[in-house]
Amino acid sequence: MDKIFRVNMTNLTTSVEDCPADWAGLGGRGLTSAVVAKEVPPTCHPLGPNNKLVFASGLGGRGLTSAVVAKEVPPTCHPLGPNNKLVFASGLLTGTPAANSGRLSAGAKSPLTGTIKESNAGGTAAQMLTRMGVKAIIIEGQPKEQAWYRLAITKDGVKIEEETELVGKGNFAVVEAVQAQHGKKVGVLSIGPAGEMRMKAANISVMDPDGKLRSHGRGGLGAVMGSKKIKYMLVNPEGAPGVTLADPEKFKTAARTFAKALLDHPVSGEGLPTYGTNILINVLNEAGGLPTKNFRYGQFEGHDKISGETMHDTIAARGGKTKHGCHAGCIIQCSQEYVDQAGVYVTSGFEYETIWGFGANCCIDNLDHIAEADHLMDDIGIDSIESAVIMGVAMEAGLVPWGDGPGVNRLLREEIGKGTPLGRILGNGASSVGVAYGLTRVPVVKDQGIPAYDPRSVKGIGITYATSTMGADHTAGYSVATNILKVGGDVDPLKKEGQVELSRNLQIATAAVDSTGLCLFVAFPVLDIPEALVAIVDMINARFGLSLTGDDVTALGMSILKTERAFNLAAGITSAHDRLPEFFSEPVPPHNAVWDYTDAEIDEFWNF
Amino acid sequence: MDKIFRVNMTNLTTSVEDCPADWAGLGGRGLTSAVVAKEVPPTCHPLGPNNKLVFASGLGGRGLTSAVVAKEVPPTCHPLGPNNKLVFASGLLTGTPAANSGRLSAGAKSPLTGTIKESNAGGTAAQMLTRMGVKAIIIEGQPKEQAWYRLAITKDGVKIEEETELVGKGNFAVVEAVQAQHGKKVGVLSIGPAGEMRMKAANISVMDPDGKLRSHGRGGLGAVMGSKKIKYMLVNPEGAPGVTLADPEKFKTAARTFAKALLDHPVSGEGLPTYGTNILINVLNEAGGLPTKNFRYGQFEGHDKISGETMHDTIAARGGKTKHGCHAGCIIQCSQEYVDQAGVYVTSGFEYETIWGFGANCCIDNLDHIAEADHLMDDIGIDSIESAVIMGVAMEAGLVPWGDGPGVNRLLREEIGKGTPLGRILGNGASSVGVAYGLTRVPVVKDQGIPAYDPRSVKGIGITYATSTMGADHTAGYSVATNILKVGGDVDPLKKEGQVELSRNLQIATAAVDSTGLCLFVAFPVLDIPEALVAIVDMINARFGLSLTGDDVTALGMSILKTERAFNLAAGITSAHDRLPEFFSEPVPPHNAVWDYTDAEIDEFWNF
Repeated sequence: MDKIFRVNMTNLTTSVEDCPADWAGLGGRGLTSAVVAKEVPPTCHPLGPNNKLVFASGLGGRGLTSAVVAKEVPPTCHPLGPNNKLVFASGLLTGTPAANSGRLSAGAKSPLTGTIKESNAGGTAAQMLTRMGVKAIIIEGQPKEQAWYRLAITKDGVKIEEETELVGKGNFAVVEAVQAQHGKKVGVLSIGPAGEMRMKAANISVMDPDGKLRSHGRGGLGAVMGSKKIKYMLVNPEGAPGVTLADPEKFKTAARTFAKALLDHPVSGEGLPTYGTNILINVLNEAGGLPTKNFRYGQFEGHDKISGETMHDTIAARGGKTKHGCHAGCIIQCSQEYVDQAGVYVTSGFEYETIWGFGANCCIDNLDHIAEADHLMDDIGIDSIESAVIMGVAMEAGLVPWGDGPGVNRLLREEIGKGTPLGRILGNGASSVGVAYGLTRVPVVKDQGIPAYDPRSVKGIGITYATSTMGADHTAGYSVATNILKVGGDVDPLKKEGQVELSRNLQIATAAVDSTGLCLFVAFPVLDIPEALVAIVDMINARFGLSLTGDDVTALGMSILKTERAFNLAAGITSAHDRLPEFFSEPVPPHNAVWDYTDAEIDEFWNF
Repeated sequence: MDKIFRVNMTNLTTSVEDCPADWAGLGGRGLTSAVVAKEVPPTCHPLGPNNKLVFASGLGGRGLTSAVVAKEVPPTCHPLGPNNKLVFASGLLTGTPAANSGRLSAGAKSPLTGTIKESNAGGTAAQMLTRMGVKAIIIEGQPKEQAWYRLAITKDGVKIEEETELVGKGNFAVVEAVQAQHGKKVGVLSIGPAGEMRMKAANISVMDPDGKLRSHGRGGLGAVMGSKKIKYMLVNPEGAPGVTLADPEKFKTAARTFAKALLDHPVSGEGLPTYGTNILINVLNEAGGLPTKNFRYGQFEGHDKISGETMHDTIAARGGKTKHGCHAGCIIQCSQEYVDQAGVYVTSGFEYETIWGFGANCCIDNLDHIAEADHLMDDIGIDSIESAVIMGVAMEAGLVPWGDGPGVNRLLREEIGKGTPLGRILGNGASSVGVAYGLTRVPVVKDQGIPAYDPRSVKGIGITYATSTMGADHTAGYSVATNILKVGGDVDPLKKEGQVELSRNLQIATAAVDSTGLCLFVAFPVLDIPEALVAIVDMINARFGLSLTGDDVTALGMSILKTERAFNLAAGITSAHDRLPEFFSEPVPPHNAVWDYTDAEIDEFWNF
């Protein structure tokens, strides 16, 4: 049976617990039926008081991190205090041969948004943990002394060891030191200086198969890890028993169907593998939804200089890698290795949102400058989307001129990286910069920076920003797919109609996908190719010996959203926080679209 | 009929409006009866749907500012954006011969707390405005350009004039320049550099009868004024028609009874006039409720060096003034003029909370250092209580050593006053400092600094901090009176019993007192001498020709609190925000008292 590894940083003890049945991967119809059989009197009236409505699907990934946070973290606690908990959980399909299933979820109460938070990342740790039989790691408490620690995780449990050498160092130094000592077959999760300084934009880095870094980016989970005084976690999978499949043949068939769907869909099979996520620069610019100069315009003059096409050609011409996967088993390979003019490696996992944010949003039309920023952020350990929004607001405040790439990189390196007073203003998020300089043109929801799609001209994503349980987050319900890419239907991005329903359906589906350990990009085939969803459900059933249906997956998604929302309400985050900043009433060229939803229209979202 | 002066800073226009009946000083039973007579069918069932419950007392001061904000400000608006409004209103008795009636209320949505906010101050403007027939000034909108303005207010209306010369200057320079040009018979409300920089701790200064400064201190209203680009407001009472009393004889009798009660009570008649509010240092130290070293201890070793007694003797020995009033007609005279060793004026309005905050809270046992801080804060235009809590957290962060008076004054002068990055971290409140340095020992409620009474060893004030509609604020319901000074009864400060009821009764009464224009210190006689409350009600009746009773005053207080609470709930501030920071579960010597209320016990407060 899978285990929960619990780490108490107050008294520096650890324990290994059996995974409770409702958190195990033994759920869905199997569990609901078991609960009903045990607790509901067979002769009761279906509409009477003795009947029970049971939501219980097997939990992994986001479903599990949110369940643990909702159950164990007091909603009004200080996110950086001893009562918050940091939870890691692999997805239901992680560790299996399913394509693109290697995502790891991290959850806690977010210091940035004050809400519950889940952020998932690639890298190697998720698959190792599952093969080691670890369902989740729960880190609680806080040391009273000033010392720093590392966690050494094996199949038998966790050891807490004092760390001195790597404190104050960047993430790359951590990876290098760990690999020098333990070789390349271990997993690493670490924080950089931003996390150590408990900055609200700090992320948690995860080593990928090539020793590069992936990130649990959003919501400041790196600050939570820093508040627990953990510099890094070493995952040593030696002797891991591996993953057992309840029905290997059925799994194999489903996995093949699933992989075929991924390869057949034009977005996951062609667009993303060729150009990476940055294919979106030209797409969004064309749609008038590429936020430019801190959300003043929907198109950027310099879009060609930073587009996915230009980036692909640049990397190819310089001898870099145009394809790269964030975890073993990825068949999309949307990452890449960006190199400089001399062909020397600069960064990987160089995403559309980062390039949008430092590019159009800050009016920087130089990919080399943005690539340097990406490298610096990986090393400092700070979220690239939040940082992009931070820099836009910093330009609004006049701290550096619009378009000044080297200036932005100086702010990252010299101010944030070194924790100067200005660096602390910046490192605590776009909202923090707005407060410090008394600005109102601050694109955030629940204090989290709004990413790369203008909510006025891509209205479905605006509903997602407003209503997501985690602050402005495009991945929470990627309406861009249907509004712009015409995947899963076609909802006009400029009209109000249909967006709330679109965002709701996508947010429900995403909460479920985030629980499987699958990369979110599997949503593209799922939305268009009916066999893809069936294959996912079949894989889960074949993994655990269940008989879930598609409805169970929807029920799981709904249940996760409701759990998260209940936590937020208890934390004091209400519908009043489901609002975009007032400046979005300003028309954005070229469509001169405005954000024109009433409060009541937005609040319809939660009617399910 | 009294007028509302409305100022629109977006299009730079002003207007003079008739005061709506429900905002006029023509309320209470007269108005409720009129509404019932007009709107309720006489034959309806009292418990049926056609009956109406009407709360309507005449509104002034806090009652009026909160009514205007609740009616006209969208609760979710950005406090520094064009949709917030800044409202000034004198109290119901302001401008009359009633003793201690010269307080001016300022209201808005607070940038510090996110709640509705009222902050009242002495000075000369309130009485001038009432004599000019101005019921309230409502300032709305926001200029699109970068220019700064001043408002010139006469009995005929408001003129908006561009201001250049005084921009960037401190409050004392503003007063000096205005007096040089307009003489001493005008009123001045101004902001210093903190307000111009829209810092969340910025206050609004009001000139007092001696050309010194009083402050609308709490909640960052100076930032709201700064966001509207108003450097100062000049009140010229020339030709003011003055105040008419409906029943001068009745007023005179009541005013005499009221003044006698003020002079007869040991606190308002003896303690405050002799030692000022700083008499409390030794009282709270003795009670073990003097928060020391950022709320670690309840007693301060150096208390004798900063006590009211020492301060009185120091001022007397140096030839300063031990008595001083903040407005004409004050018979308590709790202010003073503190001078340096050479007898040169340093500061006035030098309050217990300031001296506690820079003294015990920061371990500074030197009154001269604290007096310099007080002067600097007046000039920069920043709240002295928030600044005191800011400095305690700054010491927690290691920015200056504990006890370093000159260090603290350097932070005020060189960092906050000059708007350096560190100054902007500090100037945005204790919570901002906590965020920047990732600290959890940050004594705030709703992001407003907790003042000078430890909530663990003076539990009634803890309930007020938690439940006040305006963040941590001792004046919202000064339970210290009954817990420690044994005024209005005796509720053991260390026991949980009775505190919620005590705080509730005091908060209701305070909301009403804050609407009269009376200094809050009238509460001491009101709580102990039955004739005092009768006299206040009689004065209001004699002023406006009403027949209110004491019950109407209670109903007014309740109605104000409920109006404010409704605004807060709509703004997303819920019971989850009615909580003290978690570190108050730590025992505080000498009593080793802890904050041990359950959420449900605190939430009982709103059951009325």
